[in-house]
Amino acid sequence: MTPFTPPKTPIPVAVLGATGSVGQRFVQLLDGHPWLELAVVTGSERSLGRPYGEAARWILDTPMPAAAAALTVRETAPGLPAPLVFSALGGDVAGPLERDLAQAGHLVVSNASAHRMDADVPLLVPEVNADHLALAAAQRFAAGGAILTNPNCSTIGLVSALAPIHRAFGLDAVLVTTLQAVSGAGLPGVASLAILDNVIPFIGGEEEKLESELRKILGRLAGAGPDDYRVEPASITVSAQCTRVPVSDGHTECVSFRLRKEASLRGLRRALAEHEGEPQRLRLPSAPRPAVVVLDDADRPQPRLDRGRGGGMTTTVGRLRPCPVLGWKLVLLSHNTVRGAAGGALLVAELALARGLLS
Amino acid sequence: MTPFTPPKTPIPVAVLGATGSVGQRFVQLLDGHPWLELAVVTGSERSLGRPYGEAARWILDTPMPAAAAALTVRETAPGLPAPLVFSALGGDVAGPLERDLAQAGHLVVSNASAHRMDADVPLLVPEVNADHLALAAAQRFAAGGAILTNPNCSTIGLVSALAPIHRAFGLDAVLVTTLQAVSGAGLPGVASLAILDNVIPFIGGEEEKLESELRKILGRLAGAGPDDYRVEPASITVSAQCTRVPVSDGHTECVSFRLRKEASLRGLRRALAEHEGEPQRLRLPSAPRPAVVVLDDADRPQPRLDRGRGGGMTTTVGRLRPCPVLGWKLVLLSHNTVRGAAGGALLVAELALARGLLS
Amino acid sequence: MTPFTPPKTPIPVAVLGATGSVGQRFVQLLDGHPWLELAVVTGSERSLGRPYGEAARWILDTPMPAAAAALTVRETAPGLPAPLVFSALGGDVAGPLERDLAQAGHLVVSNASAHRMDADVPLLVPEVNADHLALAAAQRFAAGGAILTNPNCSTIGLVSALAPIHRAFGLDAVLVTTLQAVSGAGLPGVASLAILDNVIPFIGGEEEKLESELRKILGRLAGAGPDDYRVEPASITVSAQCTRVPVSDGHTECVSFRLRKEASLRGLRRALAEHEGEPQRLRLPSAPRPAVVVLDDADRPQPRLDRGRGGGMTTTVGRLRPCPVLGWKLVLLSHNTVRGAAGGALLVAELALARGLLS
Amino acid sequence: MTPFTPPKTPIPVAVLGATGSVGQRFVQLLDGHPWLELAVVTGSERSLGRPYGEAARWILDTPMPAAAAALTVRETAPGLPAPLVFSALGGDVAGPLERDLAQAGHLVVSNASAHRMDADVPLLVPEVNADHLALAAAQRFAAGGAILTNPNCSTIGLVSALAPIHRAFGLDAVLVTTLQAVSGAGLPGVASLAILDNVIPFIGGEEEKLESELRKILGRLAGAGPDDYRVEPASITVSAQCTRVPVSDGHTECVSFRLRKEASLRGLRRALAEHEGEPQRLRLPSAPRPAVVVLDDADRPQPRLDRGRGGGMTTTVGRLRPCPVLGWKLVLLSHNTVRGAAGGALLVAELALARGLLS
Repeated sequence: MTPFTPPKTPIPVAVLGATGSVGQRFVQLLDGHPWLELAVVTGSERSLGRPYGEAARWILDTPMPAAAAALTVRETAPGLPAPLVFSALGGDVAGPLERDLAQAGHLVVSNASAHRMDADVPLLVPEVNADHLALAAAQRFAAGGAILTNPNCSTIGLVSALAPIHRAFGLDAVLVTTLQAVSGAGLPGVASLAILDNVIPFIGGEEEKLESELRKILGRLAGAGPDDYRVEPASITVSAQCTRVPVSDGHTECVSFRLRKEASLRGLRRALAEHEGEPQRLRLPSAPRPAVVVLDDADRPQPRLDRGRGGGMTTTVGRLRPCPVLGWKLVLLSHNTVRGAAGGALLVAELALARGLLS
Repeated sequence: MTPFTPPKTPIPVAVLGATGSVGQRFVQLLDGHPWLELAVVTGSERSLGRPYGEAARWILDTPMPAAAAALTVRETAPGLPAPLVFSALGGDVAGPLERDLAQAGHLVVSNASAHRMDADVPLLVPEVNADHLALAAAQRFAAGGAILTNPNCSTIGLVSALAPIHRAFGLDAVLVTTLQAVSGAGLPGVASLAILDNVIPFIGGEEEKLESELRKILGRLAGAGPDDYRVEPASITVSAQCTRVPVSDGHTECVSFRLRKEASLRGLRRALAEHEGEPQRLRLPSAPRPAVVVLDDADRPQPRLDRGRGGGMTTTVGRLRPCPVLGWKLVLLSHNTVRGAAGGALLVAELALARGLLS
Repeated sequence: MTPFTPPKTPIPVAVLGATGSVGQRFVQLLDGHPWLELAVVTGSERSLGRPYGEAARWILDTPMPAAAAALTVRETAPGLPAPLVFSALGGDVAGPLERDLAQAGHLVVSNASAHRMDADVPLLVPEVNADHLALAAAQRFAAGGAILTNPNCSTIGLVSALAPIHRAFGLDAVLVTTLQAVSGAGLPGVASLAILDNVIPFIGGEEEKLESELRKILGRLAGAGPDDYRVEPASITVSAQCTRVPVSDGHTECVSFRLRKEASLRGLRRALAEHEGEPQRLRLPSAPRPAVVVLDDADRPQPRLDRGRGGGMTTTVGRLRPCPVLGWKLVLLSHNTVRGAAGGALLVAELALARGLLS
Repeated sequence: MTPFTPPKTPIPVAVLGATGSVGQRFVQLLDGHPWLELAVVTGSERSLGRPYGEAARWILDTPMPAAAAALTVRETAPGLPAPLVFSALGGDVAGPLERDLAQAGHLVVSNASAHRMDADVPLLVPEVNADHLALAAAQRFAAGGAILTNPNCSTIGLVSALAPIHRAFGLDAVLVTTLQAVSGAGLPGVASLAILDNVIPFIGGEEEKLESELRKILGRLAGAGPDDYRVEPASITVSAQCTRVPVSDGHTECVSFRLRKEASLRGLRRALAEHEGEPQRLRLPSAPRPAVVVLDDADRPQPRLDRGRGGGMTTTVGRLRPCPVLGWKLVLLSHNTVRGAAGGALLVAELALARGLLS
């Protein structure tokens, strides 16, 4: 496969909900992007008409890009001068707004959960299920619009680590306990008084998302063609326990799993290390190399030390070893607002562009 | 069963390794104890001959008891003027020192791991396996000395929550992920630079301890009498993944388990709520009532809010619900330096006194 | 002076804004109070008509009192069946609501800032300026109502430590840097993402409050009688720099000060140690003994170790030593939601009762 | 002034005490340095003979450079094959070892405090007192060796912000409260149990260092020539209060100061913004541009958001405003292990090379 020939002039993009924590990551990651150029930011009523530099309470540790700071915050509505739209909208308003934008011809790449489980909407981890992109053809929005989605921040690390294992040995059951960073809850998110010196063993809706999204992403594209495409969810039993810990960025996940075929430690390591997908083959700008890193140190991965690996796009795996109950276990780490949100969605958009969805 | 008639004059006790984090908890909990009186503190070479008030870098949030502050730190060696000895020694030196003290006639109640798995040493959670105390009769130290042990801080919460379930429904397999507080590592313990804004997914030796100790504590006392008593470990498959999180006190554990008999949510709740053991029946001074609390709130237990329950001696359980993979799951919380260390050992000593081990 | 003869039957009290972080402290501290009984809780629209146990997201580490949990949340409005009312309302709504309640005959003890600087409203630290209570006589609300106020949480620790020094040696200038806990910002307050691994060197309005409140509290009650009473602010130059740090409870303050009279270390220590005021003399239920503790340890006070001293009502002072620039410096610690909010207001109410304001 | 012509082949350098927290920063910052090449790492007995990759418990968030990982840890002793030596040794052993190395002809650039206040040792902040480098000529070690020192991590930020103000308006008195990160204490440093949910208002020796180092750095080089050079300390009264807060990297300092000449806000801002020194003029590789950034946002600087500015070499200043007591105040932030340790020492070495000290 030959790398995609990038557009000669950058494609204007909009970020919906740009003042929030995921919106800010989009703005940060789009800065200097070779194919894309931030042209529009939208926000809630409080921010409308104000310069982004004023409206957004910037919380990232690199300075806000000057060009972004100068943009005026607009209303989230069809007609934005940007064919490609990234949605960092909250789950409650995202659903109808994203439909409206797709209907108006925008290619919407969404980090919201609203449409993830829709039958005709691909839920994409580009290294894993790039073929699911075909689903979008069935969406039949006017003017070529479409909705593509990025999984939940805790799903994406899990899928990244388990997909190569599933492909090689067949997953039968997965039991995961997550230790999630506070940035996953957005802004204002978790009150500091609630999380300092504490653990909260519950995140509303998160466990259900993790369980259903994993099965869809690892599912099989079935059907005779565009009119008929559908995803048959993988038949994997999944049990999740999600907790919030006092960490700023980086979700840690402790995973046990049962395989259908016999595996060896060496075989599992090789499957992970050799994992490569469309983003790597197409040399997409945001594709990490490698997609997954396996560490041998007994005490890794750790959020503070490993979340930045591959610019925040690489999944780090450690402590791969036998599990007396389910067969195998491991610990993984994924940057929840980069790979698990804005960076993941950016990679979805790059894949879509490389496949000609905006041509 | 009638409550034990307490001693008329308090029994003098020694705390070995009294300047460390667990040693300090012993000193704190012994203050005002109705049966016991702190008479001796021992420490490492650095502290010998100094007043405890100077030698110990006190880290607890109640003032150091004045009587303790005035004690002179002594060497850990046989001949201490205290029939009952609590050991908060480090694992490396604890083994031989505790044997020597038992040989010299002391009743040693140890929080160290050195002798926990010895065939003739009871590993006690008084609510759960008070009958294992009989093992001590086989120890045959000179002058009536004996060694009793308290489990690892992450084992004790797990056993407290699972024992009543095991008794009612038979545990077949347990899969646990722990989120452990830094106080479990003692002083200096984990470097702050290593844990701020971070998770460390490894604690040396902890997973093995959890797996083997659980089976011993839930095991059956077998044998025809003192000369023949032994514990047959329960045949439960256990898989543990231990992590350290930036929390000062209180271990959170996410547990999934498979039962041998069919259970209902109502049945499990009842088993937990009605859990009562020898400490409650004997009205031992450190026995919490109830031993286990089950909460219905979706987001509990939490370390900061629940670790102090029952003076730190109660185990709090929440999120009891079906597990798609193993059948059932729950989250539990236990105060690791109270119930999981000094307080747990104190309860063991109270049980031993009530059973006449020091008469 | 003879201690106040407490009421035979407890006085019913209301807590306004009872679901917030300070409101919860009021509910906690009123539990078991010898003179007062929680009879009414009020809350915002979202909570009206619901049981307090459901409406309040309890964040304190002792269980919610059962009697409080059963109360129905009412609207904040005159006519509450409680002669004594504690206000934990937010600054924006507190002003008019508190006036209305006083006008309706309630004795309002407020933790809000709205009326603190009003000329006829006493701003009270009972150990320091109990005589300012006389101001209230000038308020002339119908039916004997009145408004009394409690200072800002960062002011109260500073005043507690400096008042005895001021009385003995005369303060000329004070320069203070505060390191404030997140509970001071209430709920939801500071976003966890904003404060984890961070310091925020700004708290809106806090520095101004600290500077003006200190002068009012240390000011002199002047005037010929009830119609004429006023407070002449102390002429002390104050400069404050307020920061927020990742601490749950307990404000630390680093203070340098210049005195008008010559002082010695011994003299300063004595002034602090002997500090006693009306609350101690009247043996008010919430009066800490001593009011101020001076520690000699080089590294104290510390929030986690010292905030609980005297049930959270004692101010802890350490590191008292010469300051090359202003003459003297010290570090102090005060529990910001106990002494600095609910507990402080409770003490104000107790003083008012003892002085017959509700007779 | 023309930029220095860099060496054609990189100069081999040694890092003494390379396994510690500052040592690791040296290793990180030397990776890819245009003039210097890490050739030698030394460590304590425990590490001798082991590969650095094994001996060092790496705690930085970028991977350990592969070339460094392969180096064998050597003993700290004269004869290391590196003309330029960076010392990250602990204060207790640094003194004699650094002397020995200088005597053996090495140019020693030290981050240790041992020689900072020696009369013939320059204490350098290159933007501020590059002329003090002349002191070294008086050292007269055999074979051209010399010792240059880098200030304490809390001094360097303070000097960076105050030097341009001092130059323009003359400092008379400085009162500073620091909120220091835990990385400043090295490894293992502060126990996590001691700092979680806490502030420690004391750092041994830190306040004295800050007070004396500031005066030396801002002092005047006097004397008639190499044999006679000396530094006359600036006559500024300094009072410091140093605290440790739960922050990983980045020291925050709240500063009030009195000037000798009248100043305006505009004048102070200009002095800071235009601050430029030898490193910027010589275009040294580690020189940040600008040296100081002044922010207008009310709530900045903040450690997590600003410590990375200029690769960790820029000092960020905010909240510049009048101080009722001393005239002016501000808040500053400086990365304590980059600018305040390894990066600062690297800049000192670059200055020395550019001035021909190793030619």
